[in-house]
This record gives sequence, C-alpha cells and structure tokens, in this order.
Amino acid sequence: MQASFMKRALELAQNPSTTCLPNPRVGAVIVFENKIVSEGFHAGPGQAHAEVMAIRAAESKGFKNFSDSQIYITLEPCSHLKKRTPPCAPLLVEKAFQKVIVASLDPNPQVSGSGIKLLKSHHIDVELGLLKEQAESLNQDFIKNQLRAMPYITLKVAMSFDGCMADDFGKSQWITGPEARQLTQELRARADSLGVGSQTFDRDNPRLNLRLENLTESRRVIVFGSPKRNLKKSKASAANGMENIISLKSVKSLKQQLKTLYLKNGVCHLLVEGGPRLAQSFLKAGLVDELVLAYGSGFMMGQGKYWIGKESKPTHLKKIQKFTPEEVKLVGGNILARGRLNVYRSC
Amino acid sequence: MQASFMKRALELAQNPSTTCLPNPRVGAVIVFENKIVSEGFHAGPGQAHAEVMAIRAAESKGFKNFSDSQIYITLEPCSHLKKRTPPCAPLLVEKAFQKVIVASLDPNPQVSGSGIKLLKSHHIDVELGLLKEQAESLNQDFIKNQLRAMPYITLKVAMSFDGCMADDFGKSQWITGPEARQLTQELRARADSLGVGSQTFDRDNPRLNLRLENLTESRRVIVFGSPKRNLKKSKASAANGMENIISLKSVKSLKQQLKTLYLKNGVCHLLVEGGPRLAQSFLKAGLVDELVLAYGSGFMMGQGKYWIGKESKPTHLKKIQKFTPEEVKLVGGNILARGRLNVYRSC
Repeated sequence: MQASFMKRALELAQNPSTTCLPNPRVGAVIVFENKIVSEGFHAGPGQAHAEVMAIRAAESKGFKNFSDSQIYITLEPCSHLKKRTPPCAPLLVEKAFQKVIVASLDPNPQVSGSGIKLLKSHHIDVELGLLKEQAESLNQDFIKNQLRAMPYITLKVAMSFDGCMADDFGKSQWITGPEARQLTQELRARADSLGVGSQTFDRDNPRLNLRLENLTESRRVIVFGSPKRNLKKSKASAANGMENIISLKSVKSLKQQLKTLYLKNGVCHLLVEGGPRLAQSFLKAGLVDELVLAYGSGFMMGQGKYWIGKESKPTHLKKIQKFTPEEVKLVGGNILARGRLNVYRSC
Repeated sequence: MQASFMKRALELAQNPSTTCLPNPRVGAVIVFENKIVSEGFHAGPGQAHAEVMAIRAAESKGFKNFSDSQIYITLEPCSHLKKRTPPCAPLLVEKAFQKVIVASLDPNPQVSGSGIKLLKSHHIDVELGLLKEQAESLNQDFIKNQLRAMPYITLKVAMSFDGCMADDFGKSQWITGPEARQLTQELRARADSLGVGSQTFDRDNPRLNLRLENLTESRRVIVFGSPKRNLKKSKASAANGMENIISLKSVKSLKQQLKTLYLKNGVCHLLVEGGPRLAQSFLKAGLVDELVLAYGSGFMMGQGKYWIGKESKPTHLKKIQKFTPEEVKLVGGNILARGRLNVYRSC
C-alpha cells in the first residue's frame, strides 16, 4: 500500500511535459487514514515545490489534520534558502506531519541529508528509500549535474539497418519514419539543450527547437565545430533566438568544454543529435550517459561515408565501446532501442 | 470454435523440431461432437502424413465414427501418387468424413485444388481458407519451392550496433552473446542447407551443423567463392560429411546458381550465415526472403572493413534495399529483429 502511494508520487513527478531543469522532477502525495487527500508536483523553476502544491491543495479543501497524515515525496525536501521558493522541510515541520516518506536523498553532496535531519530533529518520523531506484531514474540528469557539475548527455543516432547515418551523398532525410521521428521531439522535451555537428548544421539547416503537438519551445543549441552557415540567418536562430545559439570550436578536451557549458551556460541536459563525427567524439570520449538508437529504411551499402566510425583507427572487438540496450521496440517499422551507459545514484 | 481446432492443427504442424523439407509442415485434428478425438502431424520425408497419423490414432482408440466427424487439416490433402506414402484424399473419402476443413491449398500449380476436387466429387463437404495466412506462414519455404522452383533464402546478419560484421582485423567471435547465438541453431533447424562465404569459411573454419540441446544433425553446406582451406580437412566436412559440402565459384547470376542448387541438389531452404560480401550479394540481387538481424557488443568504429556494403557503389537513400522488421526483441542484451522481404501465397 505504501509503495502504491509512492508510485503515485512518481507518476505525478512526470506530469510536466517538458524538462524541469535545472530543477529535479518531484511528486508528492498526502495520505490520511490510508486515502489520498491531495497531490502535488513540481512544474519547473519559479513554480511551487511538490510538497507545497500538495499542502495547498489539501488546505483549499479545508483539510487541516496534517499531524495524523503522512506525506510521500519522491525527493528529500529542501532545507536550504538559495531558492526562489521557501524551503519545504521547515514547512513540513510547521504542519507537523505524522510521518514523511522519502524515496531518494537530495544528490547535492553539500545539502544531502540535511532536510531529513531537520525533520528528525523535530521528532518527525522519517522513512527513506521507498522506490529509491525509480525515483533516481526520473532525475538522472539532475543527479549527474549535482554530483559531477556536468551536463547529462543523451546521444541519439538514427541509422540504416547497416549502421549508416546518411547515404554517400550526405542525405539523411529521412532514414526513420514519422513515428520514430516523433521520438526525437520527446527526447528534446526532456533536454534543455541540443547539440549538433557543424557539418550537419551546414547541410541540413535544422530548426532544433521543441515541436510537440500543442507546444513549441525554444532550446539552447550548441553547434560543435566551425559552421560555414551564418548563425544569425540559420533556421535554428529563427526558431530559438540568436541568444540561444552557441558555437563551439573543436578543442582537445570535449569533457572540459561540457563542464564549461554547465557552469557558464547552465546546460543541464544535452541531447546530441548528429552527425556521425560528433557521435563518434562523444562515444570515444566515454561521455554518453544515455543512448537512443533508431534503425530504419534498409541497407544503405555504398561506401559508408557517414558511418559513425569512419574517421577512427581500427579497434579490436574486445576493446570497442560496449553498449547494452535496456529496451527495444518496433515503431512504424523502425527499431528503437534505448540504454544507459552510466547510472547515477543520489548517495 | 472451428478456428480453435485449426489453431491446434497449426500447433501440431510445428511439432517437428527440425525441418520437414522437402515436405511441408502439416497438422491434422479429428473432431467428433465438438471434441478432439485424435491428432496428427507430419514429421518429415518417409513419415506418415498428418491425416494418416490422426486417423490411425483414432482407430487405435477403437473410434470408428468418421462419417459423423470433421477433420481439420492445415494443408490440402494430397491426391497424387508420386510420394512414398499413399495419397490422403482417397483415404478421407474411404473414411467418409462428414466434413473436411482445409486451411490452405497445395501450392504446387500442377496439383493445387485436385485434393479438394476429389473430396467434393465424392460429396464430402469441404471448407477452404480457415486461418489460411497462418498456414501459409508455416510453409513459406515449401510454397516458394513449389511456385518458383528455387530455394527459400534466410539471411542472418550479426553486427555491432554500428553495423559491422567483424572488427578491422576480421574478428567476429563474438559480436553477439550466447543467448542470441542460440537463435542461429534455431534458424539452422528450420533450414536444410547453410551458405557461407569463402573468406568466412577460411578464417573461422566453422562447423556449420545443427547443434540443439539434445540433437546434432548434419546440414548441406554451400561455400560461395573460392576457399583456400582444404574442404576435406575442414570442420564443416568433419561435422556434416564431405558429401554434404558443395563449393560454388562466384558466377554472374547468383539466381541461376540457386535454381540449380534446388533442382540438382535439392536445396530447399538456404540459411546464409556470412560474411559481409555474401550478405551484400544476396541483398543486392533481391534474393533474400527472410532477414534476421542481430545487433550486439557495442560500437565497432574503426575503418569498417567488414561493413556489409564496403564493396558496393554509392547508393541514394531513396534507392536503397528497403527492409521493415516484423518483430524485435532483446535477448541477453542483444537486439534481435526479423522480417520478410517476400511473402508467398499458395494461390
């Protein structure tokens, strides 16, 4: 029963249709006499925290009996004052909840555990770790940000069934069908920034914004390499605003560049969309956290000019960049596979 | 209810753990007063036909009331006398079945429909076409044999996630894991012959026989190209007998070569196992009926020397060999996909 309330809180955390970054996704459920009184979730920066939304919703119904209630929260309530919203742990103390059930700790090493500590110091019963892994899965990007001070990297690769990202003439529109391409929009919804190689940027002039059915949003666009196309006149600039376009020349340390993007530009989750050179750089440097593969069309054959490894040295089978998909499905005749190369834990 | 009896007959048809070729897979069920009296299936050349097995099984129980019974058969009963076993249609007439329900016609244009005609001429009620597509799916190889006088071709390709069949040093053992490799044995069980390129034959010296848990069987092995390895001293010869090894030099028309293999050597279902050159030849010539793709290990990168299209001319995306998988699953961390490029109908 307890687990089902936390499951509901995890569902709520997924309510926002686009990213909450730099904030985490959080859900909360208030339970009185084994029934849900009210629910809350965090909708993004500047919005109410999940606990606050749930408490407000309960109060708006005239509910006052918090001291006989439990609250289920997917993430440790905040205790620090660096936010635009007042901290939640003191509010839970004020409402004197009978019990607070928390799925996972705040991953920020500087504050992790302090929310729990505050509650306990006020003699509130706290249970930690219920559906912890599911809660951590929700916020892999946020957890990596806190632990590593680096953006979370999702790499999406669309290929023919023999592994080519374009035909020998550079044509890649479209290797996958409309249903599979819809997935790209869902991936863009989860990220705050999109990465693209300068060759792809020059050749395809992509818009690189988020286009869901009822929602268009701009994204920060990072162009890796030296594009020939005038950035100001690009479709990406028209769709996202010139202030959101960052052009980065190739440097030795891609990792260092990513650290700067996080610290200086606030890039929290970068979706790398192509082309083959950029994909290779990220894979070879071991910088990919999550990999999404889409196979479509058929067998490209030809010279494989846009093969992902075209420019790298021979590798032995035993030394290749390993990958194990966790999910696979058929979508409109295309194979879609997904897997994580890194898993981040909050403690 | 009727459909469930035919479904059962289709299940029975799949009983033999290895191929029935050159014969079709057939299942039969005798039904009296809406209950199954007996069942039968065809186990391969020289064995009883499904109808005969079902009738014998009924009689061995003392059952005699065939004239009030229905028989469900997945394939039209044979009426011709060119077999080692007596034809089935006259036997059904002799037993005077009340009704004969047949899923699909005999695909052989010379005899198709004659079994049904014989039954009808003896005033037996015949229903044709129940679960026809499922019945045809069972015997795609047999149907192609009858219609085209050519072997059915299954191509299996094991690749890294970026589409390489070996690393730049020719090493391909093992791109896929043991669970996925088990699938190869299941594919070998369905085929009567295995095709391999001379380079793979020379490099890997594969055994190329069927090795299921409780069953080892020889297969006919077709080596395409000019192997340097002494055929008589190969593992394939030790495992299958030298009489089962056929070496075929490359010729202009692969199609003509396949026709000869069917007519002269009785190759009914050829499983092409590698390497990239051979796969390319079959794909480019449009000779593949069924494609099985296995992706594993990770990203090979490197020069892609063993990429499937390495030796072909550049192709435009719009002109590539199309493929649409029908099934996909994860097996031991590998992606396995399957699809048909040709579908054969019995009429």
